[in-house]
Amino acid sequence: MKATLIYGAGDVRTETVPDPKLHEPTDAIVRVLRSCVCGSDLWPYGAKPAQEHGDRIGHEFLGVIEETGADVTGLKAGDVVVAPFVWADNTCDFCAEGLQTSCRHGGNWGRDGVDGGQGEAVRVPQAAGTLVRLPVGVDSALLPSLLTLSDVFPTGHHCAVTAGVSPRTTVTVIGDGAVGLCAVLAARRLGAERIILMGRHTARTDLGRAFGATDVVAERGAEGVARVRELTGGDGTHAVLECVGHLAAVETAFGVVRDGGVVSRVGAPQYPAVPADFGVFLRNITLTGGVAPARAYIEQLLPDILEGRIEPGRVFDRTVGLDEVAAGYRAMADRTALKVLIRP
Amino acid sequence: MKATLIYGAGDVRTETVPDPKLHEPTDAIVRVLRSCVCGSDLWPYGAKPAQEHGDRIGHEFLGVIEETGADVTGLKAGDVVVAPFVWADNTCDFCAEGLQTSCRHGGNWGRDGVDGGQGEAVRVPQAAGTLVRLPVGVDSALLPSLLTLSDVFPTGHHCAVTAGVSPRTTVTVIGDGAVGLCAVLAARRLGAERIILMGRHTARTDLGRAFGATDVVAERGAEGVARVRELTGGDGTHAVLECVGHLAAVETAFGVVRDGGVVSRVGAPQYPAVPADFGVFLRNITLTGGVAPARAYIEQLLPDILEGRIEPGRVFDRTVGLDEVAAGYRAMADRTALKVLIRP
Repeated sequence: MKATLIYGAGDVRTETVPDPKLHEPTDAIVRVLRSCVCGSDLWPYGAKPAQEHGDRIGHEFLGVIEETGADVTGLKAGDVVVAPFVWADNTCDFCAEGLQTSCRHGGNWGRDGVDGGQGEAVRVPQAAGTLVRLPVGVDSALLPSLLTLSDVFPTGHHCAVTAGVSPRTTVTVIGDGAVGLCAVLAARRLGAERIILMGRHTARTDLGRAFGATDVVAERGAEGVARVRELTGGDGTHAVLECVGHLAAVETAFGVVRDGGVVSRVGAPQYPAVPADFGVFLRNITLTGGVAPARAYIEQLLPDILEGRIEPGRVFDRTVGLDEVAAGYRAMADRTALKVLIRP
Repeated sequence: MKATLIYGAGDVRTETVPDPKLHEPTDAIVRVLRSCVCGSDLWPYGAKPAQEHGDRIGHEFLGVIEETGADVTGLKAGDVVVAPFVWADNTCDFCAEGLQTSCRHGGNWGRDGVDGGQGEAVRVPQAAGTLVRLPVGVDSALLPSLLTLSDVFPTGHHCAVTAGVSPRTTVTVIGDGAVGLCAVLAARRLGAERIILMGRHTARTDLGRAFGATDVVAERGAEGVARVRELTGGDGTHAVLECVGHLAAVETAFGVVRDGGVVSRVGAPQYPAVPADFGVFLRNITLTGGVAPARAYIEQLLPDILEGRIEPGRVFDRTVGLDEVAAGYRAMADRTALKVLIRP
């Protein structure tokens, strides 16, 4: 089959690799219908040292089950399923608490002999726990939105949930990438009525407005902080959803959060430490968030997509085939595409 | 009247100062029955640059109202009252949310012409909001425990509350100072059944056991982390209450917290930043806490003291008069006293 491999910064290739086979009785083989490129794929795409052998890449996909191992219950060949971006048994104590990213028997796509999601097919470990059946056909128009359940939408949702977003909280979202826009959508879905989106790419912030942002702040740094404070009577917002991953974004988050408020971060951190000095202490600011346990949220978020109340798939603004994945990465890195859908 | 002033590191003096008078119609004058020295007083006692004029110090006291301004409702001369360590109107939006430390019309003892608590009397701004009436006499045996409502017990309680301590959470408390011991007491009061206290002063950890600690870990640093992990099946605890304020304690906190858990800090931070790298991110660790809005908790905690179910006043192991306050500071700095009660 064909799959995507990364050889180093700027070097993504589509190659022929062995077809996946069942290894464990808990595995399933999924034929991929849709995959996509994640903002976090851009970190290795930007900085990975060159190497001779390529590594599989991609961790968001949905597809059709081709085959299941003997111990896989509740799923059968022909089922359309979505995979969260971390596989998990969904039965251990961490999973039971909704923290499937810390599953005692889970792991990551594209590592330790497990396939990446950007390919024609994937061997799915812990299939019964990992995969969620989708009640749609293989040609459903909902596939792009359903694919966002793999990562980007639950990641925005995790950010909003851990920040305590509710109808009573004002919200700032930092970042107009696909995660930031999904965080806007999630905050609106949780009832927030005032959502300030910090971003400066008009096409993206326009989609943010469509998703529920009530204000857009294009300024960055100290000017951006001043602008958000001006919009909130000087106080900042109860919740701040940091969807970038750079220290400057975290510093902005601490600048725009209201005393007693919460900064939640879901941007993969490109920094070792965050401000936590006496000033932050006096203001009782909470820092939360982290890698999103997407698996915990899929069933909750699914009905709103199936019934057409939300359409997170609007974050996809370009579609490529597997042979064009390298161009898809370039487009996202150049910011000419917001998020690239892959149709194997 | 006599009051305590600090002139610099190691230089605390008892001096005669003008008697307090009402300035604003919202003021009250309180004759101090009991005050005490706070662990946070030791930071300036350890490091304040020498200066010609002394600054008033002390922020924990209870006493008897002598006089009230025209606008002070609900309180009258003769009432026994306790003051939280930050004064506040208790009516603004932050106060209504239980964040009196961010009150729009509040402030600190010993600053901007406001008296310190370590004196014979105190002018109390925003008296109706700040003071809480205590249904006891001036010679009640409960005064030491009631005095802890000013700061040290609500601070431990704030740490436990923000960390989400409940009957379902395991807890580590870092620090065997008076705040750490009160955090143990608060965690037990909130129902925690497993409370690991990290501290190495046996007299203090023995009191910690009396307050509810189930395990004591004397090791520090990597050894301490390993020991807590060993006690918790390798996982660490759901909640970690950081009651020291040094970076090493925060690093230990991140080392002993379970994935998905919460580190709450109430030790005044002597560091500018905390670890927040990809490893912390992958584990979904929350960092919360901050300066405790003691005022928000006093009424909740009061009945358990009045009815004898808890005795936080056991943290006081030495009593001095106002003329001996300097010796009290020395004893706390030398760790020969855990917490010093002042009886003017």
